[in-house]
Amino acid sequence: MYLLMASLVRLYVDQPLGAGQVVVVTRQQAHYLFGVMRLSVGAELRLFNDQDGEWAATVSEAGKRGGVLTCNTQTKPHSLPPDVWLMFAPVKKSCTDFIVEKAVELGARRICPVLTDYTNSERVRVDRLQAHAIEAAEQSGGTYVPPVAEPAKLGNILDNWDKPRRLLFCDETALGSATDFTSLTTRDDAGHGPWAILIGPEGGFSGAERKRLHALPFAHTISLGPRILRAETAAVAALTLWQAKLGDWV
Amino acid sequence: MYLLMASLVRLYVDQPLGAGQVVVVTRQQAHYLFGVMRLSVGAELRLFNDQDGEWAATVSEAGKRGGVLTCNTQTKPHSLPPDVWLMFAPVKKSCTDFIVEKAVELGARRICPVLTDYTNSERVRVDRLQAHAIEAAEQSGGTYVPPVAEPAKLGNILDNWDKPRRLLFCDETALGSATDFTSLTTRDDAGHGPWAILIGPEGGFSGAERKRLHALPFAHTISLGPRILRAETAAVAALTLWQAKLGDWV
Repeated sequence: MYLLMASLVRLYVDQPLGAGQVVVVTRQQAHYLFGVMRLSVGAELRLFNDQDGEWAATVSEAGKRGGVLTCNTQTKPHSLPPDVWLMFAPVKKSCTDFIVEKAVELGARRICPVLTDYTNSERVRVDRLQAHAIEAAEQSGGTYVPPVAEPAKLGNILDNWDKPRRLLFCDETALGSATDFTSLTTRDDAGHGPWAILIGPEGGFSGAERKRLHALPFAHTISLGPRILRAETAAVAALTLWQAKLGDWV
Repeated sequence: MYLLMASLVRLYVDQPLGAGQVVVVTRQQAHYLFGVMRLSVGAELRLFNDQDGEWAATVSEAGKRGGVLTCNTQTKPHSLPPDVWLMFAPVKKSCTDFIVEKAVELGARRICPVLTDYTNSERVRVDRLQAHAIEAAEQSGGTYVPPVAEPAKLGNILDNWDKPRRLLFCDETALGSATDFTSLTTRDDAGHGPWAILIGPEGGFSGAERKRLHALPFAHTISLGPRILRAETAAVAALTLWQAKLGDWV
């Protein structure tokens, strides 16, 4: 589906939602709802959190520093995306923001910044990325906000890997030699368990990293074609292929 | 593959390239090469055009208003992407730029802005989009710049459709009822002929448009999943699925 410009404001809240439930808004939310979006008492909006789905709500009180919203009826059930993580090497700020936004749109369960040998950017502000993920969920109509993990080194992540989770390794050097992803489900019934997608930095993976990744029994290597893709394009492409083959696009 | 930050400048030129061929640069190119990128006489760079592939070249003369480059040896053959057009409804400027950039990266043969019933933006500057496509090709290492067509109404395009070209219609309402794209090649040998991908505007297609599209014998409807995608995400996702199934990613 494409984005339909919602006529109603959608707001993620970290509070329980239910019929008649009252939600007290924070100062920041009040600024957004009553200042920026100009909602006044009686206005309708949509609220969602991470467990109760989406609710129609009405503004009961509106002030400069706070306000009260009241839930009416549920408009969407809570819906989890498939259990696929997007692991990516942070790139420059605007691209990292873009990757987080697209991971939310395309239905990733968890977003994991990964530090690799060739990662350029070490400074990742998780709180800022999490806020960006919330905004993307508000705009894309979802009822789930994937958590953004603390950045971790690829080596450490692999040392502590939870074996049942498959790893889809997008190898920029793999054209012609990669596992045929399209035959994965038919060959392998376990294709429908938990997965993680790994996208490298713009300089690709180091030789040592590639060697280790290829040797992992839970890793499946795929190619994303013969052209040079930017990291953010690779992230969208890999999530698309996974969703269309193993996820909820079928 | 991911983007490797090229150590060498890549420049698209609208002139023949070959061993010993001399290329006289325009004022604008001189500003870029000698002003912005600070290349001086003797510096190496890469040139490509739409028919001779990519060539290693050397700066022979460098001035404020012009200069001369000399081709040495071919570094990449000319390589066409598969014959797939990306037809999309122009959205706001930054998204349209993004769609053009991704179409080049993902290997579209032609980029066609399409005016639909719900298209918001009527002002499309083709010259600006074409310049953006050239820049994307320079940065993504390709040796092909897809032409950007003049915007045309969807109805007119369909009236004059060249029948052998299949149309991949990305219908935001099609989940569960769409053609199974994954079975297309096995069912239908003609899958490998020319194609066009059609992406709607953010408000989707009108009922009349959808009705007409569904009735076309050369159109195949697919779904891009249960979540709301922005138009630019839908463009990347559709090109990815097409390339992975019918294009040159296999």
